[in-house]
Amino acid sequence: MFSDGVLAIAITLLILEIQVPSSAKNGLWHALGELWPSYAAYAVSFLTIGIMWVNHHAIFERVVRADRGLLFWNLALLGAIAFLPFPTAVLARYIRSPDNASAASMFYGLTMITIGLCFAGLLSHLARHRESLVPTSTRESMRRALQRTSFGPITYAVATLVGAFAPYAALALYGVVAVFFAFNRSRD
Amino acid sequence: MFSDGVLAIAITLLILEIQVPSSAKNGLWHALGELWPSYAAYAVSFLTIGIMWVNHHAIFERVVRADRGLLFWNLALLGAIAFLPFPTAVLARYIRSPDNASAASMFYGLTMITIGLCFAGLLSHLARHRESLVPTSTRESMRRALQRTSFGPITYAVATLVGAFAPYAALALYGVVAVFFAFNRSRD
Amino acid sequence: MFSDGVLAIAITLLILEIQVPSSAKNGLWHALGELWPSYAAYAVSFLTIGIMWVNHHAIFERVVRADRGLLFWNLALLGAIAFLPFPTAVLARYIRSPDNASAASMFYGLTMITIGLCFAGLLSHLARHRESLVPTSTRESMRRALQRTSFGPITYAVATLVGAFAPYAALALYGVVAVFFAFNRSRD
Amino acid sequence: MFSDGVLAIAITLLILEIQVPSSAKNGLWHALGELWPSYAAYAVSFLTIGIMWVNHHAIFERVVRADRGLLFWNLALLGAIAFLPFPTAVLARYIRSPDNASAASMFYGLTMITIGLCFAGLLSHLARHRESLVPTSTRESMRRALQRTSFGPITYAVATLVGAFAPYAALALYGVVAVFFAFNRSRD
Repeated sequence: MFSDGVLAIAITLLILEIQVPSSAKNGLWHALGELWPSYAAYAVSFLTIGIMWVNHHAIFERVVRADRGLLFWNLALLGAIAFLPFPTAVLARYIRSPDNASAASMFYGLTMITIGLCFAGLLSHLARHRESLVPTSTRESMRRALQRTSFGPITYAVATLVGAFAPYAALALYGVVAVFFAFNRSRD
Repeated sequence: MFSDGVLAIAITLLILEIQVPSSAKNGLWHALGELWPSYAAYAVSFLTIGIMWVNHHAIFERVVRADRGLLFWNLALLGAIAFLPFPTAVLARYIRSPDNASAASMFYGLTMITIGLCFAGLLSHLARHRESLVPTSTRESMRRALQRTSFGPITYAVATLVGAFAPYAALALYGVVAVFFAFNRSRD
Repeated sequence: MFSDGVLAIAITLLILEIQVPSSAKNGLWHALGELWPSYAAYAVSFLTIGIMWVNHHAIFERVVRADRGLLFWNLALLGAIAFLPFPTAVLARYIRSPDNASAASMFYGLTMITIGLCFAGLLSHLARHRESLVPTSTRESMRRALQRTSFGPITYAVATLVGAFAPYAALALYGVVAVFFAFNRSRD
Repeated sequence: MFSDGVLAIAITLLILEIQVPSSAKNGLWHALGELWPSYAAYAVSFLTIGIMWVNHHAIFERVVRADRGLLFWNLALLGAIAFLPFPTAVLARYIRSPDNASAASMFYGLTMITIGLCFAGLLSHLARHRESLVPTSTRESMRRALQRTSFGPITYAVATLVGAFAPYAALALYGVVAVFFAFNRSRD
């Protein structure tokens, strides 16, 4: 309930990071067009948090008992996701600055890696405490879930490295990973 | 649950786009009066999101199974609605600027068209996957819902064109469409 | 559910209207002390929305069927309450400005009157459509609820008039009305 | 429900207090690194509100009847927690200012003491009205809960005093207290 709320709020706060153009010297269409990195970053982060919500929800539907470790991992995960509006705004602000685009892209990627590690940590905690889960959760299904989840930080690490050289390509990659997790999930 | 949260937050964030006047040279009443486009845009967007929430809720009450396509359409719809505070603020800021009022009004209208298309896409996905719906949803009722929904993007397209020439009239039209959807819905 | 969300968000957004002092020439304690009108306005508005939430919840616990009119009154009511962070910030910003304090206080009061009228409108709609309510709602209990609610706009009108001459006294009065509604409610 | 919403929103709003660097003269990495007090304050406040949510939830799971006093204490508690993003931002902004760091740290600590006192007030109200609680709540269990809770304001008072001389140490202490409450809770 609380987790759902945090994710719903984090996803909606993303829009607050897009600033209304304070002047429109070359016309408002031009000024609004100049903001395209903000729209792209908004779309990628919205999609990412949305998919994360679906996956988070799917995990916690199987949890019947919350212990101390789970609480910590969940708070760490929520804290990392709720942090995302900040690197999103940094990325939107600096992706067109030749000197700073790679730093902005990598900062965004590091946040994504952190989120991915928290997901993996949470799942591996649950895999070690299967008594917290519904009885139908087999060792095998947990192993597969963990395997799939570990794909996250790895791909994000690749995207972060790509971002060091090609920030735009990295932004596209972040979007692709979100779409992958959406498709992959539903195969189960 | 998550969708309800996103819509509740988007509707409430609208107020953050109205800035406290930083000075009040001609008196505070005058400065507050100058903000009337912000109040009007707030009212229209609040009404619009409110009605959309009712309609979104009515759709999902009939959904018994969420597949991958539905998830995507719903995320796209929520992303478009959660984007609305931004064009609302742009409209409030520029509607009195002779050079930029039509751009601001059309930008708002384009967002509305996008939202309307997402609604139509979601409904037409459900019409093609009636197994996701409660058994009482007949082909006929889905067709009617789709017909009514397709009214949205069409009217918004008209309002957007009107906005190119008469931004104030367009703002009034956006409000009228919201009221239409409120009345029309309840006839069923 | 949606209503609860809107009120929870509106009450929490109040804090965003308090700005971190950008400089602290006479020391940070002094700068933080200078913000006392913000703290007072925060406390009064928080208390007011909190009590309104309790009353709103108590009303809707008795509603079994939502018709078109109820939907409209509820949206109008939520829209007016979600607007409150703005006059709260205006009041905090201008209550110490000799020229503008009365305008700021009256603007706040006008919002409160509007909220009170929406509450009265919603209740009087329900009194005319008792078929929307749980069977235990007698004509007599609705009459009493309406009577008590009509106390709101009247007191707020008095406080608004007081605000024209004594803004600080009006702010205190707004707080007192909230406390009155909290105590009065629970007598039932 | 409403309380959960307020806490979920307060915790997520924390990120809005971190501003995107407006320039990056020495490179964006440097500018992002300079913001470390914001990250630290974010982490400590996020952890604190998260643990408070768990404890608040655990208390209200045992409440079967809400009276007037409980309502007031709960609103006061929520109001104090929802206030936390402000001192968090003040702390992040001023902790590196030699003249103002101790004031910023103590202001943060005073808010924490207030929150702790509200928790203690709420619990002691419940201890005096055990008829509001589920029957399994013994006088002994309430006494222990109260004892543990009173640990909060005392430790926060110590941390506040430490903050007068060593603001960084105080920030670390605030984090430690949150961790203590997380561990301690789960022993029951």
